[in-house]
This record gives sequence, C-alpha cells and structure tokens, in this order.
Amino acid sequence: MKVRVLIRPKAGILDAQGQTVERALPALGFDDVRNVHVGRLVELEVDNPARVAEMCERLLANPLIEDYEIVTAAADGART
Amino acid sequence: MKVRVLIRPKAGILDAQGQTVERALPALGFDDVRNVHVGRLVELEVDNPARVAEMCERLLANPLIEDYEIVTAAADGART
Repeated sequence: MKVRVLIRPKAGILDAQGQTVERALPALGFDDVRNVHVGRLVELEVDNPARVAEMCERLLANPLIEDYEIVTAAADGART
Repeated sequence: MKVRVLIRPKAGILDAQGQTVERALPALGFDDVRNVHVGRLVELEVDNPARVAEMCERLLANPLIEDYEIVTAAADGART
C-alpha cells in the first residue's frame, strides 16, 4: 500500500525555510501569500501501514519538534 | 485558500534521502518497505491559487529535477 507522510514543524517551532519563502515571494510579485510553512514529504510502499506511525517516531520525523500526518492511498480518495 | 504543494525528485533523478531512509528502515525492524522517496512539503495561504504553479516554477521547486503537485483544500476532501 502506498503511504504518504507529511512532516511539518510544530506550531511555535522556528520554520526558517517557511519564513524565507514567505519573504521571497513578494519580491517576485506574489503579494497575497501568508502562513508559509515548509516541511518534508515521505512517500513509501509498505505492506502493513499500521507500522508507519512507529517509523515516523523512530526515523522519519523528529517528534520533539515536528508533527506528522499519515495519508494512505485509501483515505485520500481525491487524488488519482 | 490553503494550498499544499508536494515536491518530489523526478523519476530517474537521484533521491539520496529516499535511498538512505530505505536502507535504514530494515535495520530498525521495518522489513517490508519499498520505493521510499523523500521530497518537500510547502503549505501556504493564498487568495489566488491559480498563481501557485507559477510560484513553484519560479521559487518553490526546481522544475529541472523536481515534480510538483498542487493540492487545494477544496480538491482534497478526505482531509479535515
């Protein structure tokens, strides 16, 4: 099963990449952009998606400073 | 409108992070993982989501070596 993990800085943790992008966009003419956050995307295929949360805790994310969201193909019907 | 941009290495481009994760997971007891790819996640709020593709081309992604997928809140009904 294909699983997608979205990893982003926790609220309150410095998001330097997001701040940098948010400051750079107006200089390129994109003035109406707010709340930019940059995180990581991990896509993988796994037989037992129940273990993906454990993978996040142990390797994929840093649970002290990052939140993660696990999206399985079945739960994500809008995407083809 | 909230927009999520998923950026990943194009097929055929070296994905060193993905390979590293794929090799590390079995050492932690996760044996059934395949096709790991690591990319970036950019979340932002924008009034005119039609311009997000242009932002990707000009700043968020490197279109020579990366593909991007734009997911708007409306098109992504499975997520709350």
